[in-house]
Order: sequence, then structure tokens, then C-alpha cells
Amino acid sequence: MGPIALLTDFGHQDAYVGVLHGVIASIAPEVRVVDLCHEVRPQAVAEAGFLLATSAPYFPSSTVFVAVVDPGVGSERQILCARTQRGVFLAPDNGLLSEVLAQEDLLELVAVTQRELFLPKVSQTFHGRDVFAPVAAHLALGQSLSGLGPSLTAYERLPLEAPEIGVEEARGTIRYVDRFGNLVSSIRARGLPKVAEALLGEARVQGPLRTSYVAVEAGQALLIEGSSGFVEVSINGGDAARMLNSQVGATLRLTFEAGGQS
Amino acid sequence: MGPIALLTDFGHQDAYVGVLHGVIASIAPEVRVVDLCHEVRPQAVAEAGFLLATSAPYFPSSTVFVAVVDPGVGSERQILCARTQRGVFLAPDNGLLSEVLAQEDLLELVAVTQRELFLPKVSQTFHGRDVFAPVAAHLALGQSLSGLGPSLTAYERLPLEAPEIGVEEARGTIRYVDRFGNLVSSIRARGLPKVAEALLGEARVQGPLRTSYVAVEAGQALLIEGSSGFVEVSINGGDAARMLNSQVGATLRLTFEAGGQS
Amino acid sequence: MGPIALLTDFGHQDAYVGVLHGVIASIAPEVRVVDLCHEVRPQAVAEAGFLLATSAPYFPSSTVFVAVVDPGVGSERQILCARTQRGVFLAPDNGLLSEVLAQEDLLELVAVTQRELFLPKVSQTFHGRDVFAPVAAHLALGQSLSGLGPSLTAYERLPLEAPEIGVEEARGTIRYVDRFGNLVSSIRARGLPKVAEALLGEARVQGPLRTSYVAVEAGQALLIEGSSGFVEVSINGGDAARMLNSQVGATLRLTFEAGGQS
Repeated sequence: MGPIALLTDFGHQDAYVGVLHGVIASIAPEVRVVDLCHEVRPQAVAEAGFLLATSAPYFPSSTVFVAVVDPGVGSERQILCARTQRGVFLAPDNGLLSEVLAQEDLLELVAVTQRELFLPKVSQTFHGRDVFAPVAAHLALGQSLSGLGPSLTAYERLPLEAPEIGVEEARGTIRYVDRFGNLVSSIRARGLPKVAEALLGEARVQGPLRTSYVAVEAGQALLIEGSSGFVEVSINGGDAARMLNSQVGATLRLTFEAGGQS
Repeated sequence: MGPIALLTDFGHQDAYVGVLHGVIASIAPEVRVVDLCHEVRPQAVAEAGFLLATSAPYFPSSTVFVAVVDPGVGSERQILCARTQRGVFLAPDNGLLSEVLAQEDLLELVAVTQRELFLPKVSQTFHGRDVFAPVAAHLALGQSLSGLGPSLTAYERLPLEAPEIGVEEARGTIRYVDRFGNLVSSIRARGLPKVAEALLGEARVQGPLRTSYVAVEAGQALLIEGSSGFVEVSINGGDAARMLNSQVGATLRLTFEAGGQS
Repeated sequence: MGPIALLTDFGHQDAYVGVLHGVIASIAPEVRVVDLCHEVRPQAVAEAGFLLATSAPYFPSSTVFVAVVDPGVGSERQILCARTQRGVFLAPDNGLLSEVLAQEDLLELVAVTQRELFLPKVSQTFHGRDVFAPVAAHLALGQSLSGLGPSLTAYERLPLEAPEIGVEEARGTIRYVDRFGNLVSSIRARGLPKVAEALLGEARVQGPLRTSYVAVEAGQALLIEGSSGFVEVSINGGDAARMLNSQVGATLRLTFEAGGQS
């Protein structure tokens, strides 16, 4: 069974991630554990949801995904366990799963309440260690969802603002900025007309979508279909977020050439 | 056998940690290796000791813990191997193990001197690679402690300043600051009278101990029992270390309500 | 078979590394994957080459090394797969492999072109996920190099400036700066005459090569044979790069004592 994939905002500075591995190794020593990402910005639930939705398709369908970005830890918020054809997903009920669950059929959804599967002492501040890790280990060993707690029909959803795609232009937002400063927008590249140019704050970036970063001069901005299928604004050899002074939430406007296909 | 858990100040910027994994994979390819933490501040021995002591209980008792924060590498300092019911611990004799060994019975303690278990060439600056990793791999494969070198009865201990717990107040220090800015004190929460307020430098934080971060308004400071059982000072949705201008070594004073239990 | 060792400039901030693990787990669930290093400075090809060459000797000779620092992704650059007695190496043809391949006999070299081994959809910007990871997984499962694509006889080489070693002095450059601020030079320590002093920019560091950091007073600079065999400039308990205001590319000049051996 397994693997287990961990996605958190715990960072690498402390031993929190290592302790998750310790708890899992205590219960399921044979299960492989993959660190999907632990540097989600603290409490950035939507960012975690974006990473989960864009990463999950590249894992085995037997994967147990554990996503812990959980500002409400210790409060009344529920813990969800969902099953789709992509795998099993364990996360707080704060909207983190809304993007990945919007992508496909929800086969099963429960609230995690069965305390025998938790560590004997559950702290107020570290449910990653005391609840999520042991439950994930049991799931990887074959635990059924129905044994975790009662079925649910509703869960918290974050508003996912759809981009506006018109005949002459499209308008979306920057969803994610990566380590390289690439600005990932909410606009899917597939099927767009040929892009004449993009407006991002004060910056104007020349179209069309390029096929590689080096298609423009070093230091020049470009548009490209990024690895998750969205239009990205990048700089060949540079950091677009810094050089174009942009960030998550900024508006990206694309104008199309008359009659063209990109 | 195993797993092996690695705790170092090597960081992730270089290939030092990866090379430890390479050496272990060369000797013990079937053993699971867990990265407990590699971002201990350079040469912060006491911080590593705190992380080890608070993390070890969450690992299998078969774990070989390797802790390398070693400013004296290449000097005459010894390398220790200790065994307790929690597992086997390998570390330089610089006080790193004093906190974890204070928690339980020391079953066996040796100095690591048996050079056949090291890499053939031992460098002056990277005993993590040349000594700790190969010895840990052999331990995970079943090597006895008695075969590592001579028994010891004494080892270096760091002074662990115990908090002062009185009837009307308690006084401790900040032991650790995590990625989120939570300030972990040396005062155990269990059994404390009801806390009226806390003084930390110029800051005054209202009691009692809360049961979740969201029990106070966003941006407000609070007191809470942290995941290792110590009183922590936190801010709901914020970074307490930065906003209260505090750090490791600061004094925390708690005053109790008359006659109350928290 | 395996393990697979990953060396990239992807960092830990995003899910790129986690997705590589997901792809490999999908194809080769039993193969161990080691993160050699992911914090190579963005697009620093020579730095990645240095880390690969100095780390590879510590891995099993069955290792599949995957090195992705790839500013030319999506352009016409080829992907190389090389085999030596140290293992199998997969990297873009941008000079990254030149240092590791200079160390030993090249047994086999091919261009990776066989698209059936890639993911079904290959993006323009993330060949790590779509090409390198799946090909590495197949290699770890026993895939022959000859099945990857056509044989090559030439590949891109970076100029490796050899240090000048004279009778009275040696002159090299700083190749690498690690997390601790240690300055790793291009001058091999073995066989050098006894070093009288070193000049590094404005700084003058007293010889000879020391046998430990603590051989000098805290805060003092020293010379030492580092863990890869090169002369390093360090500061006992401090950060030499910052305190001596030095960096990669700086010139290091050693003067020797008359007639001495270090």
C-alpha cells in the first residue's frame, strides 16, 4: 500500500516534519513516505490547495495524501478524509481540498473522529503528529474510510475565481509564484487564441506564448505554458516576480491577435 | 532493523546531507533513513539536544539516532554511542545528548573508536560522512555497542536550568523558537495553577492557557500548552518572536490566580 | 537496483521535488530515492557539477544520478546519459557532467531520445518531471543505456581552470561556499609544501593547514584540508565568506615555507 505524500507549512527549520516520519515509521515501517512540499507559506490554505491539485496527478493512485495547513488546529474544525480515483486525501476542513476535489468524482467523504487511530495523547497544537500521521499510516496499511468516522456530504470550499476568457482578451489572476520567480496565472493555455501581449500591473509582456525560456534574450520577459498547463509570466535567466514587482493576486490580462490560434 | 534518524546543522544548501544518505545506502541499502531536522542553527548544540529529546519519543524504539552538531570536529572530543529504551544515540561528546539521556535509564554507553567501521579515509572536517554515517549503518544492521569501543561512565552534560515553580508564580526561559515564531518555554504546563498572566520582556500576555490559537482574536498573543508539553507564547495568525521581540534565553514569568488550577 | 540520487536547483519552496518523487514512485515503487541536493543556486551549472563530482564517490556504484540544472529546458539542448564505474548519470548537455566525467573512464554515452520512456505529455518547462524522472526510474529498474537513444562521442564541457602549483606558491580560485561560510578552493591539499600563509582578497590567513577548526582561537581564520580534499579557508565558529567578504570566483594565493611539507 501507500505511498504517503506529505504537504504542510511546517518548514524545515524545526523537527516537525521529521516527527511525522517517526510516527508513520512506528505504525507502518514498510510504507514509503514522500515529502511533497513543506514550505507552503504559514497558514496559506489556498496555496496548499493549488499545489495539491497540480501535483496529485503525478503520484500513484494508491497514494495517501496528507495536507496539513491548519490555522484552526485545536478549534472545532473537522478533519476530512476523501477518496477519489487519484487517491485518498486527509486534510482539515478549511477549504484546502476544494481545488483537488473539484477536478474529479468524489467517491467517499468522511469526518475523522475515531480516536483509537490517533496517538494516545492528542495535543492542542500539533494534530499533524497526533492525528494526521497515525491515521495516514493506518490508511496506507489498508484502513477503510468508513472506519474513520461518519460520512459527510458537504465540506468547506474556497471560492475559486474562474478566469474570464473572451474573444479579444482574457483576464485572470496570479495564483502562485515559484522559487524562480515564475508567475503562474489562473488562465489555461490550451485552446487560447494567439496572444498578442499581456498586461501585468505596469508591465507589458510581448506575445505569443513561447516554447522555451531561451526563446527571448536573457533578461527579457516572456509568456509560456507552464508545467501545470497555465499561462506563466517568466524572465529568461531572471526572477519575474521581483523584476516585474508582481505577486499572488495580481491581475493578468491577455489580449489576442485577431483571428489567431496560439 | 532501523530506521536511522538524522539530526544535524548541515542545512539543505549543500550536498552534505545527501552524502550521509549515500554512505548509509552503500552499507545498509534496506534501512529506512529519516531526516529528523538539518536546520539546527550552526553549532547550536543545546538546540539540537532539545529537538532530540522532544522528538525521540515519537520514533520506533529500534531507531538509531545520529546527531551531528559538532564544532569540535577534528579535535580530541570523543564520539558517544548510548543506548536507552528509546533507541540508540550517536553524537559528539559535547553535551548534545545530555537532555535526552536525562529522561531515562542509560543502558549502555561507549566511546566510538573502532576504525574498521569508519570509511577508509577519515577527513578532518566531515566526521558525519566518514564516522557517524557508516557507524549508524552498521548499528542499524545489528552491530553491538560493545563492538564500537570502550565503555564509558561519564559524558559531557550541559547545564539544564530547571524552571522555578512557586505557589504564586513560575519563572523559566524561552528554550526554542520555531518557524511560526512560537516561543517554547522551559515550564511544563501539566499541573500548573491557573495562569493569570505572563511577562516576557516588555510584553504582558493575558492568561489562562488557551486550548487553540483561534481562542483569541487574530493578532492577539496567547499562552498555550505546546506539543511537547511546555508553555508556549504564540500569536493567533502571527509570529510571536518577531511581534513580541523575543528570543531563546529570554525570561518568562507566569503569575497564577489565587487558588486556581489551569 | 538503484538508488536514484536527485540533484537540482528546484529548491524546497515549491512541490517540484515532491513531484519527481511521485513520478518515480509511480514507475519504480521499490527503488530508494535520495535527495542529494536541491538548493543549487538557480541555473548554477558549474556549482551543480562540483557537488556531483565530489559527492558521487560516496554512493553505491549502482546509483542513477539525476542532475537537473537546466536553463535551456525546452530548447534544442540534448539530454545526456553517461555510464562510468561510479554509476549512471542523467543530465542536460550543458556542461554539468564535465567535472564528474573528467574523473574516470566513460564507459557509455547516449543522447536520451526514446519518447516511450517519457511521460505521455511532455511540458516545455519541466523536463525534470516529464523526462528525467521517468527515465531515471526505468534505468533503476534495469533499462539499458543503448535503449535510450543514439550513442554520442562528444558532449559539452565547461572550462575547468586548473590551479597553478609552483615551488614557492600556488594560485587557485574559490569553487564553492557552503552554509557555514567555508570557502572551498580549487587547490588540492595532498602533496602541497608547508603553507606559510594565504592571501584572499584583502585578507591574509596564517598557515599551516590545521587539523581542526578549534586549532585556532574562536573568530580566527584558518586553512584546512576540507572534506573533498581541497584547501579551505574557514573561521573557527564563524562564517568566513561573510567575515572575509569573499565568494565563488575569488583568487586564493598560497605561499609555501622554504623546503617544508605541510
